[in-house]
Amino acid sequence: MEPCTVAGIRIGVARAGIKYPDRRDLVVIEAATGTRAAAVFTQNAFCAAPVIVARAHLAAASPRYLVINTGNANAGTGAPGLAAAEATCRVLAEQTGCRPEEVLPFSTGVIGEPLPVERLVAGLPAALAALQPEGWTEAAHGIMTTDTRPKWASQRLSLSGQEVAVTGIAKGAGMICPNMATMLAFVATDAAVDLTLLQKILADAVTDSFNAITVDGDTSTNDALVLLATGQSGAHISAEGEDYTRFAQAIREVCIELAQAIIRDGEGATKFITVQVEGGRDVAECRQVAYTIAHSPLVKTAFFASDLNWGRILAAVGRAGLVDLDLERVTIHLDEVCIVRAGGRAPNYTEAQGQPVMTRPDITIRVELGRGTATARIWTTDFSFDYVRINAEYRT
Amino acid sequence: MEPCTVAGIRIGVARAGIKYPDRRDLVVIEAATGTRAAAVFTQNAFCAAPVIVARAHLAAASPRYLVINTGNANAGTGAPGLAAAEATCRVLAEQTGCRPEEVLPFSTGVIGEPLPVERLVAGLPAALAALQPEGWTEAAHGIMTTDTRPKWASQRLSLSGQEVAVTGIAKGAGMICPNMATMLAFVATDAAVDLTLLQKILADAVTDSFNAITVDGDTSTNDALVLLATGQSGAHISAEGEDYTRFAQAIREVCIELAQAIIRDGEGATKFITVQVEGGRDVAECRQVAYTIAHSPLVKTAFFASDLNWGRILAAVGRAGLVDLDLERVTIHLDEVCIVRAGGRAPNYTEAQGQPVMTRPDITIRVELGRGTATARIWTTDFSFDYVRINAEYRT
Repeated sequence: MEPCTVAGIRIGVARAGIKYPDRRDLVVIEAATGTRAAAVFTQNAFCAAPVIVARAHLAAASPRYLVINTGNANAGTGAPGLAAAEATCRVLAEQTGCRPEEVLPFSTGVIGEPLPVERLVAGLPAALAALQPEGWTEAAHGIMTTDTRPKWASQRLSLSGQEVAVTGIAKGAGMICPNMATMLAFVATDAAVDLTLLQKILADAVTDSFNAITVDGDTSTNDALVLLATGQSGAHISAEGEDYTRFAQAIREVCIELAQAIIRDGEGATKFITVQVEGGRDVAECRQVAYTIAHSPLVKTAFFASDLNWGRILAAVGRAGLVDLDLERVTIHLDEVCIVRAGGRAPNYTEAQGQPVMTRPDITIRVELGRGTATARIWTTDFSFDYVRINAEYRT
Repeated sequence: MEPCTVAGIRIGVARAGIKYPDRRDLVVIEAATGTRAAAVFTQNAFCAAPVIVARAHLAAASPRYLVINTGNANAGTGAPGLAAAEATCRVLAEQTGCRPEEVLPFSTGVIGEPLPVERLVAGLPAALAALQPEGWTEAAHGIMTTDTRPKWASQRLSLSGQEVAVTGIAKGAGMICPNMATMLAFVATDAAVDLTLLQKILADAVTDSFNAITVDGDTSTNDALVLLATGQSGAHISAEGEDYTRFAQAIREVCIELAQAIIRDGEGATKFITVQVEGGRDVAECRQVAYTIAHSPLVKTAFFASDLNWGRILAAVGRAGLVDLDLERVTIHLDEVCIVRAGGRAPNYTEAQGQPVMTRPDITIRVELGRGTATARIWTTDFSFDYVRINAEYRT
């Protein structure tokens, strides 16, 4: 199945030779006049130059063009990096007849190297010449770095008689612990949505999707997620009602599908692990426990080995920093098997029950804290030889 | 050089076959009557049964015997685990004529398996028969699990004409991110120190030693550090003066030496990395930045590869959560080479300068935050194929 086109969106991809020759590394997304854009960006204090420029441009105007390069993150590049991001916008604006503020730049790749802005802008005419509504899969390839698979998700829904499309692409496989958004993701719809409402819908969707995944706990300097609403379908979304609910759900599902695709393609990942924490006093403490488990190198290597060394999960729960945690009320399941009850090995648990679960490619760790009604769910990967290999070899 | 004996301390080691046959896995430390003991324990909520029992016994009496087993952590073992730890103390008390509260139990090894208490107590007579003042190196071997080297440190100092010895042993190589103490460490001196003062000296020493190391961010369920002061040397330590300063410094140095030995023996470690953070508003934020760098899998794998991918260090500083961090004031050095200035690549930095530093076995990352006068220093390791191998294979 191909992703749905989105009325008002055209995409062009080019090979600008930014880091490697003959690799798709430059993507331009064109949005029709009148498009509204909501966005979330990394909360890393060292945010990259394009993030700074994109934030400023978004505050000044509605975007007409998004320009994305791989091969260089333009991060940690100081004033020259900012100038390079601004020059990219200026050149694209000249070539398309819009204002520089109507262009948002995005970069991903190695941190700390100067952006080869001449090569980038030299590639723009080819990207513009390639603009077409069907460019989504090509763009999903064009934004890949250490990704092994292109990532896209798409839904079509009917709202009060109008057909609406929601399509998105994402990239990311390492340096993944988004704090507002993942490395890069772009979602578009042809519904018409007011800006305030669009930002709310995006923020709600992000909490349960891109802000619920981690590969390695390393929040990137370049995380960005943009949601474009062109309004070209004729469907207008109001702040309440069934259409709102179904539309927001579609955005949420596309975001979850993209976020999960990033985890399934996590660097060196051999397993897709859902960490579900229930019975907490609030969502924050549930997420705290879930991330402590998901970031534990000992838990991650045990899953890589398919070894149910459940004491490591228990130890992670114990060091998550919850005040007054009553161990007697803690229960841990691995899929359908109860492994920990009352803070110790479940009375009926045997290794023969647990071992088969560990060999599954998709596994859910479910922790019941027994002190409230809040829950949280995040997704993560195991920790393999390949994770070390990929990150020891990257750059060289 | 051999560790100094400590007047009033005798140590016996036995092979109890707790997990493996014919391996030194049981250590008894005997302290003379009148010994004062200070201790710090894990802050993991799931602390192991022996930690619970040791805490209670320490509150009730001054210890005469410490009994340590490897091969089984007696953690996550519920009520039977507590009973096993108490039985161990009771049997040792019967055999030595002391009270059970005068015995402190310690365990390390796999979590969640029942402690084979019959085999443990069956080994006690052999350990008691072996008691001798020279038992320190034997004990350093006897408490090893995934450690590849025994770890001990020793100093002798003269205080107001009295010769005083300080000797300690430690174990630990993985699940190392102590929060009060490391896996297991035992330090003894023959100075006489009041209990309150002894606890203060220990707490001060721990902050800069065992609480300043991390291999993998996983705080163990069994961390414990005990400092015994037998008073047999005749030297009495008061709460101030030059003797106090020199004695506290000796304790601190022995603790740092043991803590560093744990990092040098970190699972799969190929490099010893010092993370020094300066110019912070307070020590807490300096430690926060240091641990964010030290726990980053991307930083750790880059060091394993000897690849100065310094953007990963910068990204870790950026996501450490410091409020109002002014990037323009941030400087990062790798040993003597300045790699980041004003939040970007240092103007004069070249890869040719940085690369030779990365091949050194001991490397210091120095981050200057430029917003205060506080500093913090921690030690960590890189992240190698062998870390994954050791932790994927452990238990099986």
